[in-house]
Amino acid sequence: MDDGKIKIGIVGYGNLGRGVRSGLAQNPDMELAGIFTRRPVAQMADGGPFFSYAEIEKYKGLVDVMILCGGSAGDLWEQGAQVAGMFNTVDSFDTHAKIPEYFEMMDTASQRGGNLSIISVGWDPGLFSIFRLTSGAVLPAGEEHTFWGPGVSQGHSDAVRKIKGVKLAVQYTLPLEDALDDARSGRGAGLSATERHRRLCYVVEQPGAERGEIERAIKTMPNYFLGYDTEVVFTDEQEFLREHSGMPHGGFCIRTGRSAEGAGQRMEFSLELESNPQFTSCVLIAYARAAARLAGQGQTGARSVFDIAPALISPMDGFELRRRLL
Amino acid sequence: MDDGKIKIGIVGYGNLGRGVRSGLAQNPDMELAGIFTRRPVAQMADGGPFFSYAEIEKYKGLVDVMILCGGSAGDLWEQGAQVAGMFNTVDSFDTHAKIPEYFEMMDTASQRGGNLSIISVGWDPGLFSIFRLTSGAVLPAGEEHTFWGPGVSQGHSDAVRKIKGVKLAVQYTLPLEDALDDARSGRGAGLSATERHRRLCYVVEQPGAERGEIERAIKTMPNYFLGYDTEVVFTDEQEFLREHSGMPHGGFCIRTGRSAEGAGQRMEFSLELESNPQFTSCVLIAYARAAARLAGQGQTGARSVFDIAPALISPMDGFELRRRLL
Repeated sequence: MDDGKIKIGIVGYGNLGRGVRSGLAQNPDMELAGIFTRRPVAQMADGGPFFSYAEIEKYKGLVDVMILCGGSAGDLWEQGAQVAGMFNTVDSFDTHAKIPEYFEMMDTASQRGGNLSIISVGWDPGLFSIFRLTSGAVLPAGEEHTFWGPGVSQGHSDAVRKIKGVKLAVQYTLPLEDALDDARSGRGAGLSATERHRRLCYVVEQPGAERGEIERAIKTMPNYFLGYDTEVVFTDEQEFLREHSGMPHGGFCIRTGRSAEGAGQRMEFSLELESNPQFTSCVLIAYARAAARLAGQGQTGARSVFDIAPALISPMDGFELRRRLL
Repeated sequence: MDDGKIKIGIVGYGNLGRGVRSGLAQNPDMELAGIFTRRPVAQMADGGPFFSYAEIEKYKGLVDVMILCGGSAGDLWEQGAQVAGMFNTVDSFDTHAKIPEYFEMMDTASQRGGNLSIISVGWDPGLFSIFRLTSGAVLPAGEEHTFWGPGVSQGHSDAVRKIKGVKLAVQYTLPLEDALDDARSGRGAGLSATERHRRLCYVVEQPGAERGEIERAIKTMPNYFLGYDTEVVFTDEQEFLREHSGMPHGGFCIRTGRSAEGAGQRMEFSLELESNPQFTSCVLIAYARAAARLAGQGQTGARSVFDIAPALISPMDGFELRRRLL
């Protein structure tokens, strides 16, 4: 079967994998070839096409691009190189400090396999990174600030959930309006993360737990909350499940600078997302299109979003793009 | 002399050309090789290096990229193909409806000369276009709106200045806040340009001219003002020159969409520029870097910003970009 569509494989079926699966329906030039999971395939209740990750090699030639939907802490270090040795890949590796190391690993694996991989695709790293690059190239004399939120931080939510007496918890990271104003007006130099964000926790406590102790444990937690303007709100389970089950996120990336003749210039890119994983999935899908095209040109090795010309992620051809969007 | 710097030529010395000249000082990997003008070189008072446009061919091999700073209505149709036959070029051609035609002309000329040209570089067309492409690829089910301003529209200012009795005039295009809110919340479908913008004119009248007649002439001018919420403010010459001599501009590009599972997602890119031509100059300089690199790979023909990978416009190499900005 070759209908000319780009055949997509999904590796890992969490929030991101589900988002890719549903997102493909909005991209008629692509189709789902299979979802590869380490869980027992017979137990997957979500209506296939599920295949065992252990047998992924059998699908060589049947999948144009594998979208790796595992996490950056463990999965991608293991699966990334394995899959990139067999298939073209796109992933959302997001541990900023380890990107150079991960890039090298993926470059070696994909070159060895004669494949192309695009790493660290999403919004940060990803679209925000492109904005940082572009705005810095255009306004070399300036300052740039990234604000995250309002949105759910999984890492901080996990940290609160580990506190004794906490049954359910979610942590929202919120950009501070004053700091946003400072950044926009070019007075933001030197603002630290604690000066740019505040933290808001919704907590359901275990029966008999002391609210005061939980609140103190949160606010004094080093690295996560200490030093931040942190608010803790206790709520009941019903309201929690109704109001705080989504995964909204977003943020602001702002660069202010001066042209050589002194004019003040401001560039800003922002996102407001009701679903963080569903948005990241959409970015992964668009870059899978680029991966298929570059691989089709015979290119191999690792790339980041910095190496991908915008036209490659659009379903339109060059003429249509120039006519309609330029 | 070859110090490894990218040698830039400037063709045309208006606001844009002056902005490129000063902007090069912020880009240490580049240097000015010459400014080419059709005006008598001896009369140029701004401290060289000025050369006659008529002799531009003599500079082949001495200039890596010519930045074309002429206007889209006339200059670029004439100079674009001439210069692209001899040099790599970057220009800010901005007549949206004629971009396909201009692209073909530049593609033919630059291929014939074995050169590379990047057309329609700036912010709209340019950075806004990239946002339209990217946001449309990521959120295929959605709507997108571009708002211009607050900023000076040269075309509308010129139209007001042609009215009998007008001595000095400037027209600011202002996005309507309500329409911006509608666009941001996904309720902006079908908003026309007149529903998205209002127009504010500052006018100094000739002695003896009737303010009422000027105001009526402005507000009833078809294509330019008729149908718009237009405000006319009369002022004196001194205040006009003090307050309205700058060329601020900017705008907002907004896309709202829904992922396949229904989550509402919003992307926004905005600019607030104290000097429109100085900002466009900075974008031209960054893309001249890309033109030099692509030409160095032996690539020829016309490109738009859609064809340029972000990394190509940055002075940093791939490793530094991944480490510092991804």
